[in-house]
Amino acid sequence: MYFQAFFIFSLFISSTQAAVLDFCVGDLSVPDGPGGYACKKPSKVTVDDFVFSGLGTPVKLNPLIKAAVTPAFAPQFPGLNGLGISMARLDFAVGGVIPTHTHPGASEVLYVVQGEICAGFISSSDNKVFFKNLKQGDIMVYPQGLLHFQINSGKTPAMAVVSFSSPTPGLQITDFALFANDLATELVAATTFLDAATIKKLKGVLGGTN
Amino acid sequence: MYFQAFFIFSLFISSTQAAVLDFCVGDLSVPDGPGGYACKKPSKVTVDDFVFSGLGTPVKLNPLIKAAVTPAFAPQFPGLNGLGISMARLDFAVGGVIPTHTHPGASEVLYVVQGEICAGFISSSDNKVFFKNLKQGDIMVYPQGLLHFQINSGKTPAMAVVSFSSPTPGLQITDFALFANDLATELVAATTFLDAATIKKLKGVLGGTN
Amino acid sequence: MYFQAFFIFSLFISSTQAAVLDFCVGDLSVPDGPGGYACKKPSKVTVDDFVFSGLGTPVKLNPLIKAAVTPAFAPQFPGLNGLGISMARLDFAVGGVIPTHTHPGASEVLYVVQGEICAGFISSSDNKVFFKNLKQGDIMVYPQGLLHFQINSGKTPAMAVVSFSSPTPGLQITDFALFANDLATELVAATTFLDAATIKKLKGVLGGTN
Amino acid sequence: MYFQAFFIFSLFISSTQAAVLDFCVGDLSVPDGPGGYACKKPSKVTVDDFVFSGLGTPVKLNPLIKAAVTPAFAPQFPGLNGLGISMARLDFAVGGVIPTHTHPGASEVLYVVQGEICAGFISSSDNKVFFKNLKQGDIMVYPQGLLHFQINSGKTPAMAVVSFSSPTPGLQITDFALFANDLATELVAATTFLDAATIKKLKGVLGGTN
Amino acid sequence: MYFQAFFIFSLFISSTQAAVLDFCVGDLSVPDGPGGYACKKPSKVTVDDFVFSGLGTPVKLNPLIKAAVTPAFAPQFPGLNGLGISMARLDFAVGGVIPTHTHPGASEVLYVVQGEICAGFISSSDNKVFFKNLKQGDIMVYPQGLLHFQINSGKTPAMAVVSFSSPTPGLQITDFALFANDLATELVAATTFLDAATIKKLKGVLGGTN
Amino acid sequence: MYFQAFFIFSLFISSTQAAVLDFCVGDLSVPDGPGGYACKKPSKVTVDDFVFSGLGTPVKLNPLIKAAVTPAFAPQFPGLNGLGISMARLDFAVGGVIPTHTHPGASEVLYVVQGEICAGFISSSDNKVFFKNLKQGDIMVYPQGLLHFQINSGKTPAMAVVSFSSPTPGLQITDFALFANDLATELVAATTFLDAATIKKLKGVLGGTN
Repeated sequence: MYFQAFFIFSLFISSTQAAVLDFCVGDLSVPDGPGGYACKKPSKVTVDDFVFSGLGTPVKLNPLIKAAVTPAFAPQFPGLNGLGISMARLDFAVGGVIPTHTHPGASEVLYVVQGEICAGFISSSDNKVFFKNLKQGDIMVYPQGLLHFQINSGKTPAMAVVSFSSPTPGLQITDFALFANDLATELVAATTFLDAATIKKLKGVLGGTN
Repeated sequence: MYFQAFFIFSLFISSTQAAVLDFCVGDLSVPDGPGGYACKKPSKVTVDDFVFSGLGTPVKLNPLIKAAVTPAFAPQFPGLNGLGISMARLDFAVGGVIPTHTHPGASEVLYVVQGEICAGFISSSDNKVFFKNLKQGDIMVYPQGLLHFQINSGKTPAMAVVSFSSPTPGLQITDFALFANDLATELVAATTFLDAATIKKLKGVLGGTN
Repeated sequence: MYFQAFFIFSLFISSTQAAVLDFCVGDLSVPDGPGGYACKKPSKVTVDDFVFSGLGTPVKLNPLIKAAVTPAFAPQFPGLNGLGISMARLDFAVGGVIPTHTHPGASEVLYVVQGEICAGFISSSDNKVFFKNLKQGDIMVYPQGLLHFQINSGKTPAMAVVSFSSPTPGLQITDFALFANDLATELVAATTFLDAATIKKLKGVLGGTN
Repeated sequence: MYFQAFFIFSLFISSTQAAVLDFCVGDLSVPDGPGGYACKKPSKVTVDDFVFSGLGTPVKLNPLIKAAVTPAFAPQFPGLNGLGISMARLDFAVGGVIPTHTHPGASEVLYVVQGEICAGFISSSDNKVFFKNLKQGDIMVYPQGLLHFQINSGKTPAMAVVSFSSPTPGLQITDFALFANDLATELVAATTFLDAATIKKLKGVLGGTN
Repeated sequence: MYFQAFFIFSLFISSTQAAVLDFCVGDLSVPDGPGGYACKKPSKVTVDDFVFSGLGTPVKLNPLIKAAVTPAFAPQFPGLNGLGISMARLDFAVGGVIPTHTHPGASEVLYVVQGEICAGFISSSDNKVFFKNLKQGDIMVYPQGLLHFQINSGKTPAMAVVSFSSPTPGLQITDFALFANDLATELVAATTFLDAATIKKLKGVLGGTN
Repeated sequence: MYFQAFFIFSLFISSTQAAVLDFCVGDLSVPDGPGGYACKKPSKVTVDDFVFSGLGTPVKLNPLIKAAVTPAFAPQFPGLNGLGISMARLDFAVGGVIPTHTHPGASEVLYVVQGEICAGFISSSDNKVFFKNLKQGDIMVYPQGLLHFQINSGKTPAMAVVSFSSPTPGLQITDFALFANDLATELVAATTFLDAATIKKLKGVLGGTN
């Protein structure tokens, strides 16, 4: 009987290469391409490639923003490679804030696991701000590439999980992009309308130079 | 000054049609297309179009499976329309099960909010089963279109949130597809190797006829 | 004159790398990625990379289902790599059946070359079955990821060719996925409502264990 | 029991809008969009929307080319709308030819149902011609947008079915595009290197003017 | 002869609906969808739908930035609808600047028509700034969704044309998004690390309130 | 302070692999895949990978067509790899012509930098020609895969820049595809309605044989 079943199946899938077609667990050790990482050899793939435990334990919060973002993108969780989705975990102390940022390559949905979060995004066409106080169990969607932010608006710590429409959504925090590098203060000033003193102060806080 | 700013902006975005480009909140009252629903008029869009509270409250569990799935797909949450992502909530009593099913149009990531869940999927190329006992905070990914299942494997109720790489992932529960309709018993038998008595029993349980 | 033409053309395409841009014949000997196989060196590509003869000769039918599926997917026919399409051939003896299955990554169109085929698919949203007796020359479409089946409904052998909207559509036969592996009988029972005796019988027929 | 099943299902799919998500049969009576036609109301969809019989009967051949193309694209077969695939049938008398043409929006696979067909395509990067004599059962793939042709190379009538990676692949026959319209002879001459006499002769044959 | 040609063609394209398949000129008067505007009736489409003259004449520069952006996106040039591309024109007086901004939905290529432009973008993963002084005829690419800017770095007026990988790339100027609306100063402060005085000053310049 | 900033950031992006996610500069030295070239190591990427100067200097015109096309596609400008866009420059002497051609993989927008250009495309569904005399600053769009041409219609040299909705749009010049290769004259004749003398003459002009 077993032979028979094997025989049936061999009619359908005639070569070992086929085993890779259902998924493409990322192999981070070889060069990637525009669509993602090369595929790990299927014979070496186990269930542990599809499970990630890194979002389960709270991370140490950053004292500056009293918050933390823990990503489960393809570089951290290679089982997502090629599958069009990823996740992250947001932790907030009381008063914690995820500063204004974008994800260049994905839309996002946020689910409030615990606490209360004031969340919003800014439309590009008319600068309108869509924001609301979210309670536990609420979800909110941020359209791809638009500036958005999250603030712990409650009196207790807050936690949320977020999902993205790409395994590599990217994350560009506006303040870090503007101030946490060596772009000359006069260039930052020219392109943001901010004055040199403000820029230099923020470069100091965020680790930028020049 | 206000005039000046208005003037700057009018150089960039010269017509009111542009307001819709950032998002396309679904208008369920007119015909949809292959890419999703038609867009609600931008002037009528508010923050409430981007927030959904339907996952916050536990729903009544189904006695047969001691579990429930609450979707936040585009038909329930039209703000997701066109954005490549959606969510759902899974509730399990002790012993609860989400039966084997597929999402024809999306990959899925599951995050365990509470309890312990035995979750798995079956590869198509060699029928290999990838399954594992997930603890609170673990995430697992299911590649698009493959059969998968979730079982409460703990001694307490469990809850998970899941995300999909499409606003309309679909959900095809194998048992419902096979038995909860009027497909003649002999046709089900011919295409599944199940015997007529088994089919008729399951049609009875799940509401099928013929 | 020849020089002149060469000169014209060299204005358009300035490097030999360009030769690969029209197509990407799969090279099965190196790792693949989410979008498919790496490209064979263009200088080694011949017309035989774009022609496949494996569907021309009838294969031995499987005695269990009195039918056979012969795929021309990218692993069998690497010229399809990256081109968004593939084919397969279905052969049926009298009484032959292709059991209920899905293609996780593609929609399908079937063309009846010979005989009569009862073919159907099951919608996910309301479990409605769309099925019909197809005659020679009829075509039927199966939307991506939905369960479908084909039965020889005539009194002669039947043959069909099918096409898919992906070079790697995948093929998940529900019975094989559920019974032709080592998933424990109690887990199959819990996730399908089938009783242990039925499961063990089908595991026997299809080569499963546990 | 039936109530129970209904209840289970209502947990999964909570609104009638959901019924459309599995497919989007084209409604040709309202304006279409870039992604295809608007969807027919799901409650009016029947199995006949997914079956097309127009390829079953041979059509009258055109005396000029001793051949015919019968399309089953979305405008003829609206069930394909949004599903990424379509078909057509090619009929050839002895000596019949499908003239050089492109499909601007799709790759194509050809399956020889009957007879012998000399088929080829021309690469864009180096004008190399890939062509071969195909026998019954052979398949050949044409990469998207490249010029290709088919000639009955046997001593009997021939027939093939072809599939496309789009429901609306388009079809641009080079000779018709150049000569079967009112583009001024001098403009055709300037852009093709052909002389006026040749152009006027072909305009005459193919119905062009000017 | 004309009849003959008509006859040939009628074998290929059997219905008037087909005329729309080559393009989908946007009809701005009816609701749009996630993929773009509904298609203008093909019989009303003329060559003027595919030509746009709005980039030909220099616009009045904005005194604040001494620059101007003139878009040719789908709302301005509906012939682009569904075609995956758009354009814009950038004009700079001496000292002119296009402030730091993103295009949420597209990558961009810039071509310097006249003058000298210092252009750069900021990577999201490590805040690295890639910038360079571009001369007439140089092109530069900005990956999708990343912050970038352009400054007239020469001693004469400058002009550039830019292209986008979408008909509706969007444009989010960071300063306008942060300051040209009614988002409360304390929320801006919390999410940007800027102090209230700086925010209020910029709200004043750019027309924001609160 | 610097340490603090580093610490914040390390919460977001936890591995060096992440650096590649913003872009994928093509590495032409290793095999490519269907989606493009493999990515250059991020640590070796500089601003020069995103800037291309090859369009800045006029190239020598071809005497046959009194025109030239200079591409900036991914093989020439690897920074475009994976970004969905590319460019080219068209130069025309008085009387210069870009012969009828297609881009199999992209739509195109043309911007007239200098002079006057008569440009047109031919629809596939009804062979209708859409053409117009374009002046400096006009733009025109050509839908993907359709035959189009450009003629210098003014009394001075002309120059245009064109953009494509793909980094590898391809370029198939109809005359070169038909005549600049070794396809036998009788096969060209059979598939184009042209007579042997015309074909042999054009093969002579364009460097073809047989």
